[in-house]
Amino acid sequence: MGADKSCLAGVRVLDLSQFEAGPSCTEALAWLGAEVVKVENPRGGDQGRGISLGNIEGTDSHYFLMLNANKKSLAVNLKAAEGVALVKRLAQSADVFVENFAPGAIERLGLDYPSIRAVNPGIVYAQVKGFGEGSPYAGNLAFDMIAQACGGVMSVTGMPDGPPVKPGPTFGDTGTGMLLAISILGALYRRRETGEGQLLQVAMQDAMLHYMRIAFATQAKNGYTPARRAGAASVSGQNAPCGIYPCRPGGPNDYVYIYTSRGNPEHWRRLLAVIGREDLVDDPRFATGLARSQHAAELDAIIGEWTRGRDKHEAMRVIGAAGVPAGAVLDTLELHDDPSFEQRRIMQVMRHPVAGGVKMPAWPVRHDGAPPQVQPAPLLGEHTADVLARWLDLPPPEFGALEASGVVGTKQHARTR
Amino acid sequence: MGADKSCLAGVRVLDLSQFEAGPSCTEALAWLGAEVVKVENPRGGDQGRGISLGNIEGTDSHYFLMLNANKKSLAVNLKAAEGVALVKRLAQSADVFVENFAPGAIERLGLDYPSIRAVNPGIVYAQVKGFGEGSPYAGNLAFDMIAQACGGVMSVTGMPDGPPVKPGPTFGDTGTGMLLAISILGALYRRRETGEGQLLQVAMQDAMLHYMRIAFATQAKNGYTPARRAGAASVSGQNAPCGIYPCRPGGPNDYVYIYTSRGNPEHWRRLLAVIGREDLVDDPRFATGLARSQHAAELDAIIGEWTRGRDKHEAMRVIGAAGVPAGAVLDTLELHDDPSFEQRRIMQVMRHPVAGGVKMPAWPVRHDGAPPQVQPAPLLGEHTADVLARWLDLPPPEFGALEASGVVGTKQHARTR
Repeated sequence: MGADKSCLAGVRVLDLSQFEAGPSCTEALAWLGAEVVKVENPRGGDQGRGISLGNIEGTDSHYFLMLNANKKSLAVNLKAAEGVALVKRLAQSADVFVENFAPGAIERLGLDYPSIRAVNPGIVYAQVKGFGEGSPYAGNLAFDMIAQACGGVMSVTGMPDGPPVKPGPTFGDTGTGMLLAISILGALYRRRETGEGQLLQVAMQDAMLHYMRIAFATQAKNGYTPARRAGAASVSGQNAPCGIYPCRPGGPNDYVYIYTSRGNPEHWRRLLAVIGREDLVDDPRFATGLARSQHAAELDAIIGEWTRGRDKHEAMRVIGAAGVPAGAVLDTLELHDDPSFEQRRIMQVMRHPVAGGVKMPAWPVRHDGAPPQVQPAPLLGEHTADVLARWLDLPPPEFGALEASGVVGTKQHARTR
Repeated sequence: MGADKSCLAGVRVLDLSQFEAGPSCTEALAWLGAEVVKVENPRGGDQGRGISLGNIEGTDSHYFLMLNANKKSLAVNLKAAEGVALVKRLAQSADVFVENFAPGAIERLGLDYPSIRAVNPGIVYAQVKGFGEGSPYAGNLAFDMIAQACGGVMSVTGMPDGPPVKPGPTFGDTGTGMLLAISILGALYRRRETGEGQLLQVAMQDAMLHYMRIAFATQAKNGYTPARRAGAASVSGQNAPCGIYPCRPGGPNDYVYIYTSRGNPEHWRRLLAVIGREDLVDDPRFATGLARSQHAAELDAIIGEWTRGRDKHEAMRVIGAAGVPAGAVLDTLELHDDPSFEQRRIMQVMRHPVAGGVKMPAWPVRHDGAPPQVQPAPLLGEHTADVLARWLDLPPPEFGALEASGVVGTKQHARTR
């Protein structure tokens, strides 16, 4: 067992979350070695199991697999009072409890913080909501894109003269899950000393502000006018040249990002050398950072002329090697196929008993040289018997009765699609 | 002292990072109660202090203030051998060491992991780089936007028929910093038991893959064709209606995001009721999720007709109250001015001795009901004497000699702009 896996060895997480914001949080804990037990409905389980199910029949979605690696699954019917009672018993031996149900649902189940705290005062109880308690929208439903709209993200994404744009990655979900994971880990650290639990709550809208701080700083600098969309440039200010430049052969992602910092004029001079335009070094239109900003369109034309003659990989290689920040716009297939990620274990293959081998991004932080090992996401109910036996020391007859009455489901009995 | 502040009480972080990726990570630790000491060049300090300096003279940028709350500053000249030796001594009594210099710089300083580990085997040594060790681009410079280009983010952001777009928020920087914070906390948790340190390394390009998992899942579902830009829709699939709809009075951010999930057809029916178009319930063009996807443009026109007659706040309120996910596209000023954030302490005012009151997003996770308290970002060298006395028990004459020779700077002597 590597250093990575044992970071949270012995930590028990009772995970009532579904979709992405909650599961991304608990998966990070699982990758660091916590025992994360998903509590799932025996009829279908986490709704994420069925999202965008594609060409593989009888298994879970790739969406689910990627968000639930290294976890366990316990199938229990929360519509039965015995099911709820069972979860409360499990909570007594858990260190962390996580939920991201719609507003009001956890209270209706009787598994809210006061109820859980009553049986385990030392628990770290963590919740993700769309809008915060006390917000006028606390009762509203939220998804990733709602958080990105209401958290300011869309207002600063897109072209200066165009409409707001939604970023493609699910920053609203995973971006929130990561912040909650940090607070859970902080609370666990403290708990080792004090034994005391905590209530942790994060709202997806609020979490977005954390990723928007440069836009807020820019707004403050500009006398409190709203931060504007800046296209490919930085929200915080003008650096020219700086942008997404077209490359050969002109496909949808044949572009290279080139950045020259006003703080380091060497970037500009190095770039001129790379594109063979040293003749412009003394051109007054481009002599200072301010002048370059004022002539950004001319600069973009000059640089685009050079980039159009190269493919993006060559452009990145040549410009990057000259000490100018440059990055090819890579698509998911290029990233998937790049051998460097697999060699460095940033991409790993999940060996799933039904889906087979699924290559996916692993936890990207290397611990003593390597990221944690990806283990398969659980089948629905795969660990019901195991967890009840180990966490509760449940006698076999009692387990048999729960199973017979449908309160719990096992891999064999839970309904898979 | 609230539960929040004491999570990491007693944890000492020696922070050699600058700009955003590293500082966002250490700021999260500071908000959870760690003692984070920024090691800064006495001549100017963290380069972030000078970024986009605006209308306030003689102080630090808002950029710096927002990324360095609750930290301390120790000004030491790393070009002097005594300065490097001093940092090594500080590392002996630190729990965590963080750096995000350009490739090769920390090795040239002699403060690389082997050197620090030799004096403190129990240290958690954490690094942020642009590209990972072993990547063909490991030696390249990187900034937020380079990570967003090379990590796939831009390839899935923008309109289906348009070029790649860079998200405005600095997900490449803060998104990376958050993942490193999680691993640091995991390593600290383990260290409490074992006393052992760890080397943690994260590359900004690699970190972006973590936020791109839904795009990778979509690609796998679609037989390994690259995930495409989907405009306002989700990368993972079609749900219609779903989009960013224009509102009154037509300003740059007068839009409302409306989402109807194919998984929950009630969203669609509820939306029809809100916009007074129950007549469409049985329309065959819109009868199923698939049908609605095929007639998305017609749907967008119908919904746009309704939203254009409302302002975004009303649209969000009315649609959200009906149980349909909806979010106004809020800009930074609207978020800044919304009293709910300040009441809930998601936005707090930093009381800075030079800059005055600066309202900013605080750590958005509430611990037992409230986020941690924001404390001012440090002046350059503000805590030099204090930290050297407490961490090293440095005798005053030795301190005086270091100060006289310019190896360390104090608030009075460090050069502020």
